[in-house]
Amino acid sequence: MTEKSVGAVRPKTFTIDSLKLVSGKYLKPVTQCYETYGTLNKDKTNAILVAHAFSGDAHAAGYYEGDKNPGWWDSLIGPGKALDTDKYYVICANVIGGCKGSTGPSSVNPSTGRPYALEFPSITIEDMVNAQERLIDHLGIAKLLCVVGGSMGGMQVLQWVASFPDKIQSAIPIATALKHSPQQIAFDEVGRQAVMSDTAWNYGNYYDKTEKPERGLAVARMIGHITYMSDKSMEDKFSRRLKEKNGDFKFTADFEVEGYLRYRGDSFVKRFDANSYLYITKAMDYFDLSGDKLIPRGRNIKTRFLVIAFKSDWLYPSYQSQDIVRQLKIRDVDATYCEISSDYGHDAFILEVEEETHLIKHFLDKSYHNNNETKTYEI
Amino acid sequence: MTEKSVGAVRPKTFTIDSLKLVSGKYLKPVTQCYETYGTLNKDKTNAILVAHAFSGDAHAAGYYEGDKNPGWWDSLIGPGKALDTDKYYVICANVIGGCKGSTGPSSVNPSTGRPYALEFPSITIEDMVNAQERLIDHLGIAKLLCVVGGSMGGMQVLQWVASFPDKIQSAIPIATALKHSPQQIAFDEVGRQAVMSDTAWNYGNYYDKTEKPERGLAVARMIGHITYMSDKSMEDKFSRRLKEKNGDFKFTADFEVEGYLRYRGDSFVKRFDANSYLYITKAMDYFDLSGDKLIPRGRNIKTRFLVIAFKSDWLYPSYQSQDIVRQLKIRDVDATYCEISSDYGHDAFILEVEEETHLIKHFLDKSYHNNNETKTYEI
Repeated sequence: MTEKSVGAVRPKTFTIDSLKLVSGKYLKPVTQCYETYGTLNKDKTNAILVAHAFSGDAHAAGYYEGDKNPGWWDSLIGPGKALDTDKYYVICANVIGGCKGSTGPSSVNPSTGRPYALEFPSITIEDMVNAQERLIDHLGIAKLLCVVGGSMGGMQVLQWVASFPDKIQSAIPIATALKHSPQQIAFDEVGRQAVMSDTAWNYGNYYDKTEKPERGLAVARMIGHITYMSDKSMEDKFSRRLKEKNGDFKFTADFEVEGYLRYRGDSFVKRFDANSYLYITKAMDYFDLSGDKLIPRGRNIKTRFLVIAFKSDWLYPSYQSQDIVRQLKIRDVDATYCEISSDYGHDAFILEVEEETHLIKHFLDKSYHNNNETKTYEI
Repeated sequence: MTEKSVGAVRPKTFTIDSLKLVSGKYLKPVTQCYETYGTLNKDKTNAILVAHAFSGDAHAAGYYEGDKNPGWWDSLIGPGKALDTDKYYVICANVIGGCKGSTGPSSVNPSTGRPYALEFPSITIEDMVNAQERLIDHLGIAKLLCVVGGSMGGMQVLQWVASFPDKIQSAIPIATALKHSPQQIAFDEVGRQAVMSDTAWNYGNYYDKTEKPERGLAVARMIGHITYMSDKSMEDKFSRRLKEKNGDFKFTADFEVEGYLRYRGDSFVKRFDANSYLYITKAMDYFDLSGDKLIPRGRNIKTRFLVIAFKSDWLYPSYQSQDIVRQLKIRDVDATYCEISSDYGHDAFILEVEEETHLIKHFLDKSYHNNNETKTYEI
């Protein structure tokens, strides 16, 4: 097993004239920024779509020219890795509504010549997946070997199952849910309130202003980071260490955990659009494939599933992954459930590389093998 | 058992010229706003001090003239209730650093004639308790029958044990901790960041301004409310009900849980001072009676303990209460631990009236009885 990087990568774009949204409105045009790693085989049967989480982007693996840090899931994508680019063709696209190259509220509205801001239509996880399906079609892929993603990426995986069950051979939803609980909605709502209570937000119209809603967005991100970690992982990382020994406090970052949160908040605002924050969190909150909505009664699904949850993840608790498995079992779908014992909380889907690699590699090998077996029979 | 209210009550004040703070600075003068319920007996042996939580105040029971709602712990304080005012003399004082009648950052600094704002010195839980001790002394009480409180109130209970072990016969720390974990510090820090990122906060100088840091303070309070509830209690209270049926979202409060949080945030800013928010949360974060600090080696403690935690409380998880009990047992202290099975999360210390009443009433009866027995022997 050689574990190396996919090396230098560049983002590509794919633009369609128009996309009908779930709301009935049309978004036009629609650009998706995406990256691919590995080579699509002749039969186009080795394609894996990676769906990114809330603050992710198309840059899942490899290095941009001059960058020191690789893409966000580089530890799992590459030659010999879980998503083995020696065997598979891996695709990752920035979601619509986002701000990393795909059409979103910061894009120019062709009908006004100015950024959409709050004139951007409401979008859903289903709209994101409908756009991805157009991209996959454009790449000439009739059926994906797998769709995989954690957190909001997992919601997209589930939406692929609901919308295009015949176009995916296997699915790996990680640390996700069929719908947000009130607690998850509440955390998102407080983040939105933090953004919208920043006077610089200015009802979404800040693109041409010097001052951006950076303070509110940083607070929103800090809330997010607390929910991504576990009580235990925070204890291990920070304990109660003080940054400096001083008896008096004056509302600076006294504890290391405070400094960490401020740093994460401040660095986030440099790379993320506040309006995208609002639109995408709402898309997650409205997502609901509970009950019969994932697989309607009478529909026969051949997709194989690997459902992964993490013990210390309290943002997407494992009972939500078990709900997914329950729905699959009711419909007699081939599903494997694995709860990984990790202290990392929700962040585990990025950090528990070894366990995930083991599970995903084995699972994909079987899908890929079945693929080739089927082909053998066809000859 | 007659369960009725203590009826009409009025706050009182007690002012001392000066209090030496843990930091070495002096606060002068120091006013404490307090209320009392029931009658102090001749021997002054029936006094119970109630310590309030972060956003609480001296108004623990009964009704202010014209008010529809009673004090914050009225369900536990009154004739025939857990803190039975037919038997006990109950005292509750607003903490220093607060904004409900006691000296805090919104009080006038005598040396400038303007509100202290950030010139208010840093205060600790120990300072709060030192001030309370002066009040108890003023009331002529040599020894309290009990000190009881939940959350930050529980920290004050523990501080009484550490500072004045001979002045308390029994102690009831509820849903509290010997020290804040990094996660608890992190939630407090995000709340502080929300306040301080509001431009109207103006480095604490907003008392003479039309605009107050209400947006930031409301966001901080919303974060708090999420941590006070459990995943389950939110599910029971709100589920995913939409406030109105509408396909499109526009960042209004679509879900009931969002409306609830906004309401709680908005109503909080009307009654709480933003600078007090900063000072008091820092006091909690700096609180640390872990290890030998609660009861130093060699000190003999006669205080009886009832330690209460709640199963679904994830803000002050039960392992923190168990840590308290462990420290007490190491020092051979008489301690009873009870973990109440509740879905209410941290809010349970206000809401689980029946269970708490049962436990506290029984526990106090025993202390009171021992009191009278001792007196019999003395005669």
